[in-house]
Amino acid sequence: MPFRIGLLGHGTVGSALAALLPGRADRIEALTGLRPEISGVLTRSSGDFEDILARSDLIVELIGGIEPAYSYVLRAMRSGRHVVTANKQLLSQHGEELWEAAREHGVQLRFEGAVAGVVPIIRVLQESLAGASIDRVHGIVNGTTNFILTEMARTGMTFAEALAEAQRLGYAEADPSEDVDGRDAAAKMAILARLAFDTPVHLDQVRYEGIEQIHPDDLEYAREFGLGLKLIGTAERHPDGLSVRVYPAFLYPGHPLASVGGPFNAVTVESETITEITMSGPGAGGPQTASAVLGDVISAMIPPASTPAATQLLPIIHDVVSAFYLHLEVADESGVLAQVAQLLALQDVSVKSVVQMGLRNQARLVMVVHPVLESRFFAAMELISRLDVLRAPPRAIRVLEQEFG
Amino acid sequence: MPFRIGLLGHGTVGSALAALLPGRADRIEALTGLRPEISGVLTRSSGDFEDILARSDLIVELIGGIEPAYSYVLRAMRSGRHVVTANKQLLSQHGEELWEAAREHGVQLRFEGAVAGVVPIIRVLQESLAGASIDRVHGIVNGTTNFILTEMARTGMTFAEALAEAQRLGYAEADPSEDVDGRDAAAKMAILARLAFDTPVHLDQVRYEGIEQIHPDDLEYAREFGLGLKLIGTAERHPDGLSVRVYPAFLYPGHPLASVGGPFNAVTVESETITEITMSGPGAGGPQTASAVLGDVISAMIPPASTPAATQLLPIIHDVVSAFYLHLEVADESGVLAQVAQLLALQDVSVKSVVQMGLRNQARLVMVVHPVLESRFFAAMELISRLDVLRAPPRAIRVLEQEFG
Repeated sequence: MPFRIGLLGHGTVGSALAALLPGRADRIEALTGLRPEISGVLTRSSGDFEDILARSDLIVELIGGIEPAYSYVLRAMRSGRHVVTANKQLLSQHGEELWEAAREHGVQLRFEGAVAGVVPIIRVLQESLAGASIDRVHGIVNGTTNFILTEMARTGMTFAEALAEAQRLGYAEADPSEDVDGRDAAAKMAILARLAFDTPVHLDQVRYEGIEQIHPDDLEYAREFGLGLKLIGTAERHPDGLSVRVYPAFLYPGHPLASVGGPFNAVTVESETITEITMSGPGAGGPQTASAVLGDVISAMIPPASTPAATQLLPIIHDVVSAFYLHLEVADESGVLAQVAQLLALQDVSVKSVVQMGLRNQARLVMVVHPVLESRFFAAMELISRLDVLRAPPRAIRVLEQEFG
Repeated sequence: MPFRIGLLGHGTVGSALAALLPGRADRIEALTGLRPEISGVLTRSSGDFEDILARSDLIVELIGGIEPAYSYVLRAMRSGRHVVTANKQLLSQHGEELWEAAREHGVQLRFEGAVAGVVPIIRVLQESLAGASIDRVHGIVNGTTNFILTEMARTGMTFAEALAEAQRLGYAEADPSEDVDGRDAAAKMAILARLAFDTPVHLDQVRYEGIEQIHPDDLEYAREFGLGLKLIGTAERHPDGLSVRVYPAFLYPGHPLASVGGPFNAVTVESETITEITMSGPGAGGPQTASAVLGDVISAMIPPASTPAATQLLPIIHDVVSAFYLHLEVADESGVLAQVAQLLALQDVSVKSVVQMGLRNQARLVMVVHPVLESRFFAAMELISRLDVLRAPPRAIRVLEQEFG
C-alpha cells in the first residue's frame, strides 16, 4: 500500500529527500508495510498546496520562515495529516500553537531536522529521556560559527577572514547574520529548552550573543590555559527558573563538547539520574538533514509519540553563574594588578589563573576567574573599565568548567 | 489508570528503577495518560513469576543470563505482555527467537539498557536511522576496559594494577573475565550489528580480543605518534558481507571516540547519507541503566516500534583492512630495518611512521603501517617473528585512522 508524502519546498533538503527516498523505499516497506512515495511537490513557481494536501497522507514542510509555512502546517494538521518539518523559526515562535493543533487533531508533528541536523536530540529528549529529570542542555547547534571558530583557532585568521572562508566552502550563507549573531542557535535552544523542561519557551525569551567580536588574540592567549572557543547554547534549570542563552565560551579540553570541530554540531544533556549524554554529528547539509526528516516520516508511518502539553510553567531567568576569561590592556606600572584584583574582590570575583605579559610601556593581563554570578562579574568589569591605567576596553568571555568524567 | 510493571530481578538496576519510578510517575502520567506502578518483584528468594505476570501489563527483565530469563521473557510475550530487558547475553544469543515472538504476539520487546547504558543507540538505530543505509558502527561498549585503559595511559600502571584499581572503585566485577577478554563487548556488538544491518548476528559469530596483553610500554610509545588506546567494537558492511569484531585499537586524537575516557561508553554510526553520528555517556551504573529501561517502559506505554524481521542475510566475514602499530625488539646491528621493511613489502604492508631507539646492544623499532588486509599483515608478522635479529616476539595493535571532521 502506498504512503503518500506531500513535499513543500524543493531546496537543498527537499531535493535531497526526494533523491534519498527511492533507494530506501523497499526497506521502509519491509519495516512499516507501507511504501512511501512523493505525491506532489510545491515549489515557488509550481504546484498547488490544496491539491497536494488532498493527495497526501503526510506533509513534509521544508519552506522555512514563518509564512506561508505556518498556514500550511496548521491547515495540514487540521485536515488530519501528519506533518514533518525542519523549520526552527516556526517552532521557536509558534511551537505551542502547532503542538496544540497536533494534539487536538490527533496527528503527529515531528521536527528532528529543525535542530542539529542528523543528531537525534529531539527524539532522545522526547522519548529516551522521557523518564529523566533534566538539569541542563549544552549545545553547539550552529555549524557555521563552529566552523569559523575552528578555522580562527587553527590558522590565526580574523573573524572576517574565517567567515569569508566559510562562505567560499558553503558553510556560511551569503547573508550570515543570523548565524554569526547567535539568533539561529537561539531558535534551536528555545526548542530544546521546551522539550527538556516542559516549559513554553519563545525565541524572544532567549538571550543571545554572537562571535563577531572575537579577536584571534583571545584564542591564542586562551590556548595557554588549554582552552578552546565554541558558541554554546545553554538551557538549564535553576532553583528559581529556567535559563536559556547563547554565548561564545571557552571549554577545557576534557569538556564533552571541546573536541567538536568544523561544521559539526553536538548536544550534551545532563541529569542527576543519567549523569550526561553527548551526541554529535553534521549539523546541516542536504542529505544529512533529509535523513533526519526521513527518520521522522518513518516514525509517523508506524505510530505516534506526541509533544505533550506543557506541564510546568517555569519563569525565564537571566542572571546565572559563569566562569570568565578576562583580557585587559593596561599601563605597565606597579600596582596595576593590585588595583584590578581589588575591584574583582569587591564583587566577590575570585581569580583562578593569571598571566601578565609586558609589551614596551604597557602590559597584557589575561586571567580566568572562578564561577560567579554574572551580574557581579559585569559590575566588576564596569569598575575596571574606568581605571586610568586601562589602555583599551576590557574583554570578557565565558569559560565552561569540565563537569564530568 | 494504572499501568502495572512486573519487575524480575532486584539487583543494582532493578532497585534503581524501583527508586526512580515514584518521582517520575506524575510526569509519565501527564505524558501517557497512564500511571506506572510496580505490581510485583521477583527476587532469588521471593515472588512467584506466574503470579506477577498475571498482575502486570509489562514485564521488566533484569535477571541477566540465559535461564530462567529466556523462559520468562518468552512466556510474558506469549501472554501478550510487552517486555523491557537489559539482558545482552539473552539478545546476542536468542535475539531472533525473541524478536519473532514479539512480532507474532503483537507486543513490544525493548532493550535500550542492554547496550551502552543510557546512550540511546538502540532507539537511534531502530528509529532515527531507519531510513539510512549504514556503513559502519564503531563502539566503546565496555566501561570496565575503557576505565582500565584510561588509567594505564594516565598513570603508567600495568594492566593488573589498573584492573585492581577498577575493582576497588567498583568499575570491575570480582570476576572481570568477560569484560577484559572482550566477550561482553562482543555480545553488545552482535546486537548493534543486527540492528544496523538487518542481518541475524549471534555472539558466536563475533571475533573478539581483550586487553590483558596490553603493555604500559606500548601506550607510552604510541603517545609519541599522538595515539590513545581503546577497546573498540566494529560492525561494518563490506562488498562481500558484514564484519563484527572487538579489539584493542589506537585512535588518533581527532577520532570521534578518542576523547571518551574513564568508564564512559560511546558509539559512532557512519553512513554515506548522514556522514556520522557519535553518542557517548555512562555505560553502566544502576540509575543510568534504570533510566534507559524507564525510557523503554514509557515508549511501550505509548505505542510500538518493533524490531522488524531480518530482511538481509549478509554472510559474516573476518578478513578486513586495518592499520597497525608494530613494536619490535631487535639486535642493534646494521641492516635490521632493511630486513623488516623487506618482509613487510613482500606482503604489501606499507610503513607510515617509524621510530628506532637504541638500548645498549639491542634496539626498539616502533612503527605504524598504513591500512592493509589483516591476513597480509599477520603473514608479514609471522615472517618477521622468525628473523634471527628479533629479541622478543613482535607486538601489534590496530590503529584507527581519523576518517571525518
